Amino acid sequence: MGKVDLKALASILNLSVSTVSRALGDKQDIGESTKKRVLKLATELNYQPNAQAASLRHRKSKTIGVVLPEVANNFFSLVIDGIEEIANANGYHVLVYLTHENLEKEIKIARHIQNGRVDGLLISISSETVNVDHLLEVKNTGLPMVFFDRVSNDMKIPAVTTNDYESGFEATRHLLEAGCKKVAYFSLSQNLSINGKRMKGYQDALKKQKPENMYQVVLQGGNVHEQNVQQMISLLNSEDRPDGIFACVEKLAIATYEACGCLGLQIPKDVKVICFSNLHVASLLHPSLTTIRQPAFEMGKEAAAALFRILENGNKKKEPLTVQKKVIKSSLIKRNSTAII
Amino acid sequence: MGKVDLKALASILNLSVSTVSRALGDKQDIGESTKKRVLKLATELNYQPNAQAASLRHRKSKTIGVVLPEVANNFFSLVIDGIEEIANANGYHVLVYLTHENLEKEIKIARHIQNGRVDGLLISISSETVNVDHLLEVKNTGLPMVFFDRVSNDMKIPAVTTNDYESGFEATRHLLEAGCKKVAYFSLSQNLSINGKRMKGYQDALKKQKPENMYQVVLQGGNVHEQNVQQMISLLNSEDRPDGIFACVEKLAIATYEACGCLGLQIPKDVKVICFSNLHVASLLHPSLTTIRQPAFEMGKEAAAALFRILENGNKKKEPLTVQKKVIKSSLIKRNSTAII
Repeated sequence: MGKVDLKALASILNLSVSTVSRALGDKQDIGESTKKRVLKLATELNYQPNAQAASLRHRKSKTIGVVLPEVANNFFSLVIDGIEEIANANGYHVLVYLTHENLEKEIKIARHIQNGRVDGLLISISSETVNVDHLLEVKNTGLPMVFFDRVSNDMKIPAVTTNDYESGFEATRHLLEAGCKKVAYFSLSQNLSINGKRMKGYQDALKKQKPENMYQVVLQGGNVHEQNVQQMISLLNSEDRPDGIFACVEKLAIATYEACGCLGLQIPKDVKVICFSNLHVASLLHPSLTTIRQPAFEMGKEAAAALFRILENGNKKKEPLTVQKKVIKSSLIKRNSTAII
Repeated sequence: MGKVDLKALASILNLSVSTVSRALGDKQDIGESTKKRVLKLATELNYQPNAQAASLRHRKSKTIGVVLPEVANNFFSLVIDGIEEIANANGYHVLVYLTHENLEKEIKIARHIQNGRVDGLLISISSETVNVDHLLEVKNTGLPMVFFDRVSNDMKIPAVTTNDYESGFEATRHLLEAGCKKVAYFSLSQNLSINGKRMKGYQDALKKQKPENMYQVVLQGGNVHEQNVQQMISLLNSEDRPDGIFACVEKLAIATYEACGCLGLQIPKDVKVICFSNLHVASLLHPSLTTIRQPAFEMGKEAAAALFRILENGNKKKEPLTVQKKVIKSSLIKRNSTAII
């Protein structure tokens, strides 16, 4: 059988389409017995109101959108799990859009999303995103939005992040305490809020512990894995090579492992490595990887909860009275990649 | 500024909504100068036609849906990358829905998707899915659908899979050739097409190489990681313990590594391990993990391409003339977890 629509129901019941529609809408001008007949058949035939037409009427898609850079790492997949837990509890579906760290893609998605597909949006911006005009456009349509993890300071919307600065400070101090004399920072895009804060933590930790004769090197990573490996090989081959690497994100730590493998350098004997990561096999790596573990699942839950608070409040104001910024702490998990030999 | 709609354009231009709508639709009854005025303003104000209204008229959402169990492993995230490459080339957006291996969730998504949100659907079913009535319902609405990886034989739609049987045979033979006398199969849900074929490959390889005195043990894994680890610990603690494990999927191999760690068993000396996986850090594990690598990216591309072929052909037929089944081969990557000591 094809799709059951109003017309089909009307035809079977020998009623007008308008009567069927008004019966399903529980309108007062339709008799109770007619309503019962219509509802019974609609249930039997699994009649589904057309979501797009219904949404135009009710302005509710019962769907929230999530825009994020990638799912090939455990941080974002855990965030999605957290978002889904809250969305499901509220009877909402979750749609995931991927930007692949590409600004052009993010702009296209932002345009696409403006057209009433979702009731609200959770977003973590791409590493190429500096100007957020495309997101301001979305905000100006009145769509409730919440940032998570990667935010823009140019937009006053609620945000759920982790304590990137403090964790960056702690990661660097941990390397220094493990005996590293020369700690380098393997950086993600300089545009990103998370990168800036983690790097500032790195710089301040160096200043505090090694005010004189300070070794400070920032290696710029990118989205192409092979290039990241090559850049790390070059750094580790240089005369003044680092003995500790603080990688901003997991993939840069993996690139560091591979670079050390290529050069025959041993972790943690020759180089110690720490990174932000939710990699579920961190403890099974050779050697096991010391990580700053973000509260990914909790961040997803909190971001979704913030969005549903706006949805419940009706969100008619363009500037919410209180723009909530929530910070959930990360934790340092010490493993063998930073062990003292 | 709020959302620019037809009414706003009409008001600014001092025209009727109907005239603006017909001008944007390039209707013949509207003069060229009016059309130019309307288009100019619409462009300046970034007017976006309401997708839901437009979709009702054109029956095109320019969006394809992808329904899959999870994104916390590299196989599915690579598949998504492949799908997106083809979708982008066709000017389509990709929406990702996650079932989390839960049939009830899959049913809800199937109902949700019937309502014109997407132009086509790519799906890999959950491990709980046996009865596919909910998917047949979607198919009966006329929505083009393609299976990838995990398929149901109860539906005649195109499918893109890998050579699960042959790869399962090869994985088992590899363990036997590496010296294993007792190879166990760590199984995913028995419902799944991929599991059945891989297990049949395992059984046939045992029969062929060890027709007499054959050790054949199937350990049933599930979706709870800690339970999988515990079950493997029990098996490895049993009197007649295996010396080779063929894990159907990555997470079961990770559980095996952890179980060996708990028991102090060494891989590959005491137990050899192989699994289907696209884990990007397989070579960095301790020990590096021998894998059957599926052509995930290519499978995503092929599945999306099959869907776009249906979309291009108009897809008015309920039973396409040729239901294409495409199989793309996996490859065995030998690493230390199956090394001969």
